[in-house]
Amino acid sequence: MALKTPEEYKESLRKLAPNIYKFGESIEDVTAHPATKRSIEGHAQIFAAGLNPQYEDLATTISSLTRERVSRYLAVPETAEDTIKVAKMKRLMFHLTGTCTGGRCVGGNAINGMWPTTYEMDQKLGTKYHQHLTKWLRNAQASDIALAGALNDAKGNRSKPASGQEDPDMYLHLVEKRGDGIVVRGAKAIICGVAAANEIFVLPGAVFREGENDYAISFVVPRDIDGLTIVEARHPSDTRESEEGFDAPVTIGGISQAWLLFQDVFVPYERVFMCGEIEFAAMALTNFLTSYLTTQGGCVAGLGDVMAGAAALMARTNGLSTRVFNDKLTNLYINNETVFSAAIAATTLGKKHPSGAWINDMLLANLTKAYSSTVPHANTYIVQDISGGIAELGCLPSSKDFYSPKHGHLVQKYLKAGSSAETRAKAARMAEWLTIGVGVPGFIHGGGSPDIARRMVRAYTNLEEYIGYAKRLAGIDEDIPESTKG
Amino acid sequence: MALKTPEEYKESLRKLAPNIYKFGESIEDVTAHPATKRSIEGHAQIFAAGLNPQYEDLATTISSLTRERVSRYLAVPETAEDTIKVAKMKRLMFHLTGTCTGGRCVGGNAINGMWPTTYEMDQKLGTKYHQHLTKWLRNAQASDIALAGALNDAKGNRSKPASGQEDPDMYLHLVEKRGDGIVVRGAKAIICGVAAANEIFVLPGAVFREGENDYAISFVVPRDIDGLTIVEARHPSDTRESEEGFDAPVTIGGISQAWLLFQDVFVPYERVFMCGEIEFAAMALTNFLTSYLTTQGGCVAGLGDVMAGAAALMARTNGLSTRVFNDKLTNLYINNETVFSAAIAATTLGKKHPSGAWINDMLLANLTKAYSSTVPHANTYIVQDISGGIAELGCLPSSKDFYSPKHGHLVQKYLKAGSSAETRAKAARMAEWLTIGVGVPGFIHGGGSPDIARRMVRAYTNLEEYIGYAKRLAGIDEDIPESTKG
Amino acid sequence: MALKTPEEYKESLRKLAPNIYKFGESIEDVTAHPATKRSIEGHAQIFAAGLNPQYEDLATTISSLTRERVSRYLAVPETAEDTIKVAKMKRLMFHLTGTCTGGRCVGGNAINGMWPTTYEMDQKLGTKYHQHLTKWLRNAQASDIALAGALNDAKGNRSKPASGQEDPDMYLHLVEKRGDGIVVRGAKAIICGVAAANEIFVLPGAVFREGENDYAISFVVPRDIDGLTIVEARHPSDTRESEEGFDAPVTIGGISQAWLLFQDVFVPYERVFMCGEIEFAAMALTNFLTSYLTTQGGCVAGLGDVMAGAAALMARTNGLSTRVFNDKLTNLYINNETVFSAAIAATTLGKKHPSGAWINDMLLANLTKAYSSTVPHANTYIVQDISGGIAELGCLPSSKDFYSPKHGHLVQKYLKAGSSAETRAKAARMAEWLTIGVGVPGFIHGGGSPDIARRMVRAYTNLEEYIGYAKRLAGIDEDIPESTKG
Amino acid sequence: MALKTPEEYKESLRKLAPNIYKFGESIEDVTAHPATKRSIEGHAQIFAAGLNPQYEDLATTISSLTRERVSRYLAVPETAEDTIKVAKMKRLMFHLTGTCTGGRCVGGNAINGMWPTTYEMDQKLGTKYHQHLTKWLRNAQASDIALAGALNDAKGNRSKPASGQEDPDMYLHLVEKRGDGIVVRGAKAIICGVAAANEIFVLPGAVFREGENDYAISFVVPRDIDGLTIVEARHPSDTRESEEGFDAPVTIGGISQAWLLFQDVFVPYERVFMCGEIEFAAMALTNFLTSYLTTQGGCVAGLGDVMAGAAALMARTNGLSTRVFNDKLTNLYINNETVFSAAIAATTLGKKHPSGAWINDMLLANLTKAYSSTVPHANTYIVQDISGGIAELGCLPSSKDFYSPKHGHLVQKYLKAGSSAETRAKAARMAEWLTIGVGVPGFIHGGGSPDIARRMVRAYTNLEEYIGYAKRLAGIDEDIPESTKG
Repeated sequence: MALKTPEEYKESLRKLAPNIYKFGESIEDVTAHPATKRSIEGHAQIFAAGLNPQYEDLATTISSLTRERVSRYLAVPETAEDTIKVAKMKRLMFHLTGTCTGGRCVGGNAINGMWPTTYEMDQKLGTKYHQHLTKWLRNAQASDIALAGALNDAKGNRSKPASGQEDPDMYLHLVEKRGDGIVVRGAKAIICGVAAANEIFVLPGAVFREGENDYAISFVVPRDIDGLTIVEARHPSDTRESEEGFDAPVTIGGISQAWLLFQDVFVPYERVFMCGEIEFAAMALTNFLTSYLTTQGGCVAGLGDVMAGAAALMARTNGLSTRVFNDKLTNLYINNETVFSAAIAATTLGKKHPSGAWINDMLLANLTKAYSSTVPHANTYIVQDISGGIAELGCLPSSKDFYSPKHGHLVQKYLKAGSSAETRAKAARMAEWLTIGVGVPGFIHGGGSPDIARRMVRAYTNLEEYIGYAKRLAGIDEDIPESTKG
Repeated sequence: MALKTPEEYKESLRKLAPNIYKFGESIEDVTAHPATKRSIEGHAQIFAAGLNPQYEDLATTISSLTRERVSRYLAVPETAEDTIKVAKMKRLMFHLTGTCTGGRCVGGNAINGMWPTTYEMDQKLGTKYHQHLTKWLRNAQASDIALAGALNDAKGNRSKPASGQEDPDMYLHLVEKRGDGIVVRGAKAIICGVAAANEIFVLPGAVFREGENDYAISFVVPRDIDGLTIVEARHPSDTRESEEGFDAPVTIGGISQAWLLFQDVFVPYERVFMCGEIEFAAMALTNFLTSYLTTQGGCVAGLGDVMAGAAALMARTNGLSTRVFNDKLTNLYINNETVFSAAIAATTLGKKHPSGAWINDMLLANLTKAYSSTVPHANTYIVQDISGGIAELGCLPSSKDFYSPKHGHLVQKYLKAGSSAETRAKAARMAEWLTIGVGVPGFIHGGGSPDIARRMVRAYTNLEEYIGYAKRLAGIDEDIPESTKG
Repeated sequence: MALKTPEEYKESLRKLAPNIYKFGESIEDVTAHPATKRSIEGHAQIFAAGLNPQYEDLATTISSLTRERVSRYLAVPETAEDTIKVAKMKRLMFHLTGTCTGGRCVGGNAINGMWPTTYEMDQKLGTKYHQHLTKWLRNAQASDIALAGALNDAKGNRSKPASGQEDPDMYLHLVEKRGDGIVVRGAKAIICGVAAANEIFVLPGAVFREGENDYAISFVVPRDIDGLTIVEARHPSDTRESEEGFDAPVTIGGISQAWLLFQDVFVPYERVFMCGEIEFAAMALTNFLTSYLTTQGGCVAGLGDVMAGAAALMARTNGLSTRVFNDKLTNLYINNETVFSAAIAATTLGKKHPSGAWINDMLLANLTKAYSSTVPHANTYIVQDISGGIAELGCLPSSKDFYSPKHGHLVQKYLKAGSSAETRAKAARMAEWLTIGVGVPGFIHGGGSPDIARRMVRAYTNLEEYIGYAKRLAGIDEDIPESTKG
Repeated sequence: MALKTPEEYKESLRKLAPNIYKFGESIEDVTAHPATKRSIEGHAQIFAAGLNPQYEDLATTISSLTRERVSRYLAVPETAEDTIKVAKMKRLMFHLTGTCTGGRCVGGNAINGMWPTTYEMDQKLGTKYHQHLTKWLRNAQASDIALAGALNDAKGNRSKPASGQEDPDMYLHLVEKRGDGIVVRGAKAIICGVAAANEIFVLPGAVFREGENDYAISFVVPRDIDGLTIVEARHPSDTRESEEGFDAPVTIGGISQAWLLFQDVFVPYERVFMCGEIEFAAMALTNFLTSYLTTQGGCVAGLGDVMAGAAALMARTNGLSTRVFNDKLTNLYINNETVFSAAIAATTLGKKHPSGAWINDMLLANLTKAYSSTVPHANTYIVQDISGGIAELGCLPSSKDFYSPKHGHLVQKYLKAGSSAETRAKAARMAEWLTIGVGVPGFIHGGGSPDIARRMVRAYTNLEEYIGYAKRLAGIDEDIPESTKG
């Protein structure tokens, strides 16, 4: 049986060597440390969902490699329907965890990015990358690993390319080819869910030019590989995760985002899927993004659904009917369904790749991303607007004050409104958590900046064709060249 | 062969008896009169497309009734793919005509609205409506008719229901049942493309309550049926269609919208598809809208594509590069693809009806409508912004002044910029036509007001489910009932 | 007495020689011709307002040149309060005419643009321009002329400067200096209200560089000066102004916008206010815009007020309470008050110029313009949304059909809703007129494109100062230079 | 001399008895405790500004009571110019502290709210409230106190009025009138800056109806009065204020918001300004809001200025030119100037009250509030968008990891971009602090919900007048009554 139980999953994490740090200290057991355990509880729900008949159809699928039931996060989608199920699964996971489970999600997209890419590399270059990837994936499915994905390099000075940086390590790069593998150095920054993962799939983080071949690398490593130091980033109100009480209200979901510092890490060849083929780095990136940006629409919609629920909850605990807020809630629903529709359309208008993978429509994948950047922010305002002042900034006394033997009874007396004081306080903390607190995921820049998405929308739109329509309708024959200026 | 040529189509219109009026006068030949001929030229392009290998796959399909190739406008979509092709066909038709070809489009949606509805009526009530509809449709396909659709009643005082109106004719209604058919009276207002149609498919225009049974009627009539008077509505700058020159720049597409005045019109029973079954009027309306609102996404995107082309054309004829406007054009593309994605998603997440019809997702059909209302308006600003002052209001001298023997040479001298003066003048008229002129279609209210679409989005969203997610995540068990107030 | 009656004003126009054309024909009497008479009726209301105690305080002021009561359109504002009254007067004029009365407004702003500019020219260059302007203005006040203003050149290819155009006439320019005056050639395009004006104040339409001195010219001419040909531009549905009935519903206000074609026109020196001083062309333009863009906020708000009224009127004639649309109407009010507030703030934060003129704040003048471009468009959507389908495109039968002996009774029967049919039809035509018809003024580009306003907002904002605040707060001392790239 | 030094101010706070709690514990010295000291440092800058010639004109004014120079926060504005200076002072204070200094600001507005109200009460009721207020204010000016203001009651179930609450304490109310004063009970929630204040000015928090007289109370108390328990609310990432390092980057400004729990607090009559006069509670609230909402425009613009600086700082530390973000920054400037213009216009169009106070325009005060709710949120997106992933959520390692002897050198190596690593890290923390961190003020609901502001905009707009304009223009005479339905 390829599917792990939540407990088996946690046990697999406990076996890894400690190489994760936060607040200057080592995290010995990620499943127990307050900085990481919520994220792992969130990911554990994916494993539980795979074994739950209610969710099985979304959370798992039959592997075309092994014909066994495997996690959908570890299976390359082969049809539009497959991809729609991925999007729905992601919407579901936000319902269940309230936030991002990037420790399986990004890794899954990395597989989708490299599957058609390595196929074409092997076809055109005679390499064996696709073979490596196939073999590794078969094992990954069998052991049902949680797989993080790492794309984003440190990047240094943004106005200069990889090869123009003062410090050549600003993009992760090949240091040495050995007989049995390669050595790499550099950093991957703002990487999601690593603490909850067994392995990390590394992709090239940019498009490279001639002479930058050492940056065009892709491979998979165990999370605890020698030479890798992982430093968890902060996030808003993160220390609440170490506190007692309800101020960090969600215990079954959480974010971890880390900086991965590679100090001459060795990777054996059978785990290397690209090494110097700069002409394929762009394809890898494109295929990753087409997969990632599309299904992210499910995440954003799922987050939005929880926001709708949290806002309605606050309205009621304030003593108000949700009908008062019909118009605002409708705006929120429209936001959610817009980004989800873009995702569904991107898969529906996609096409089959010779490698077997389904490639979503690039224009609409980037349309989805354009909304992924803006929808959570727009929804945040709606939730805070509906919820009132105590949720806007979580502007209510701490859980400790709520239960204070001295003044707790007063705090409770005055917090009571449309429900018990405790329920109202928890609801307010939930709205805070979702909109300005621990649970907020980084959707503006996740998968690249919104500007890149807009550039891609433009690149995949055929303006000359549309000019042709207008000219024909207006009865214009004259050839009107583009001005060279301005 | 079921498909008409453009000329055969026009000939079929010329055979109809004259019952259309504009400016107080009868229109004797709709294919020649300036108020209607552009609309008919637009519809003629649909017939041409059906015979053109380049467009055949979108414009036609194989009838499941006859196994013959028929117009897609006359075939009930049976799969998501069918409906996607309808949406793409509508996008195409805007590319070719620049505006609405409602004289086939709305009728097609009316068929889609009544197909599953009559199926269920026959199943539940033992009626023969579906049989009537099937027989009529088979003939309609064979003679390749252009079929308008009429939904919107005069409605009278909006704050009162049909049965509360002072004048009972404010909603079209049954006057008498005879042995061979029914007699109806009332009006259908703002009906698109009637002048370009051979027949008109009438649907109930509202949801009716007990005692309003006479209003729940559906049937098809020839456009020139006895007792029907058709008065064409005005539209902006419509008299330019009677002028010489380029001030009404588009001659191969045009809008006609009419008021249909039924004075005791007789309809034989084999053309009647509902007569008094109020409990099915809502279903008819819903099924019509699910079809209409979804595929309208193709219309709006197609209009937007032509707007992109027209704006770019103006930029160039002004002497500027379109690169200057990259950001604005990208906003326009995003608008177009958003509404189109919503349509694609609405079809993809639809489901099969026992009658064979594909029923699009109601939530997303209404999401599409929400964008259909706003996108053309948003795009209008972008086009006028990019195009500059002469296109904002068409603020340039008339075609007559352009060619004036007295001062035409001066007008031409000063209109020259990045192209010939004539091309720039035509491009400006095209931008005007699209945004504030003859070509503007009524997308805000077409298919119902945006508020209705928003209400439907709300009705099809399960807020209680989302509240459940938030409560589970926040660890709240308390039952919090909706306030009865506010 | 310096103030004309409406009839004296019209009489003064009738005395001018005919040099205005539309549709290829000469307009012999502008006060009677359908293309111009509505505009003149609108302007006549300004004259009436000056003699009406209710409006006197806004429409007139005491001249600091003559100590007599003169039109506020002909008096340089000397305090913030003066300018606020100008803005309020413009809001009032939209209430009274429903549209633009540019035949006094732009001329007034031209005076304001040249008053401080000529003052500084005389101070720095020893010229006598301010003396000329003062003398001319004294006479203009005494004869209470309507004064149009002309800024915008034909401009030719937008990617090239005046001196780079193939045809040197693309910007109006000096042809010859004679003993008693100058000769000019070129065109001014999209000039508002000329048909309603006695004289035209010409300003340089751009910033010029070394060697383009011949383009830096400013002067005043009578509207009917020798060598000037005026061609009226079209506007939406303009031919309705020649029709009987209510399809062009407003008869006491109207737009005229013209192209002014100068063929070697002679201007005597006492009417010349700039001739070759390129270093002052930018100042003239800036001073004009600071005045024009600010008080335009009154126009846009006044238009918006009428739109609120028209939308509410439609709601009621449809049988609905305006309460249904409270939220949409509130958005409309907010739009109106935003642009008006920007104008009020621009005057309040302005400063006194040594010439006596009050110079509004440049940053906020451009803020006002940014809203002037977008607010009318946003309001248009709200009006059409509230009004329903018959107003969106004026989609109801023509006035001729409404009164048709044959079918008029039916049209009237079915148009009746919350008022008489005639009132509802007129209200729908009014909403159409305001939003997509004859009355729509060109606010997107009037006073320059919105992009220029945005660039000016940026130019007048001190980003380095704000960076300093952020650095101080974050405890950052390091000097961080701007990247030279990107 | 009426003006305190920063040190004298802090000393005055240290003298107060401890009655403030956070995290269940008492705060003994508010000037030293991490939860409150930053807020006090911020307020101390107001005192410093009053003694600084650069800021003196904004931060102080001449008292019309004493003819001495006093804090502008303790002086009733008597002209539009006075109020504009208040708005500019508030913009300045955000520049200096980065956040809210409500411990003087709200109190100042409370004075402005009660000054004209007590004047009218004394005139109409023969009370001595205005006398009390005048006397108290004279002393307050002389001792230069920091004065918080408390408006918002606990409110309980929002769908019920004060008298309908199960617990009568849900709105602060009179318990008993004694010979020398009154006893009050209840709570004021989400009260800003109390920890930084010497005294607290209490206002009625709602409009009350017949029989709710006990809720119509206003008075001033010392912050440490017997029977008052103050519990500080949490705010995002608040525990960082107790940490070392740069993760809470701003030390010279900070937010404190508290819940004030009044347990039978005694207030002597000379400090009572309303007691039971329900018909004046609405006036008090209105006068407070007109003052508060208007000048808040300065706060929001000042916050926006700092956001512009922080975003530009991040762009540069990332190695990018701010030119890349010209368009986004311009949107941010427009947001800032819009809310500021609304404030300036609200003062300019205000009027003089017989009490001497200047009353801002109510319509435009609420317009300002409408923007105060939305502008900070809109700006937040722009800052996070420009700043990139590390600022969106502060997604970089902690200060402790930055300086870790083990891996700090790696963190620093990879954080370096367009500046030193430390500067970039601090800039990222600053952007986080401003947008999703400790510094975020509660502008959505501060001064009431945005919905209330919108309702007030509607209430102060004369729709019937605007309908009149439309009817006149359209030539409609018929009287069209509002439908009673819908």
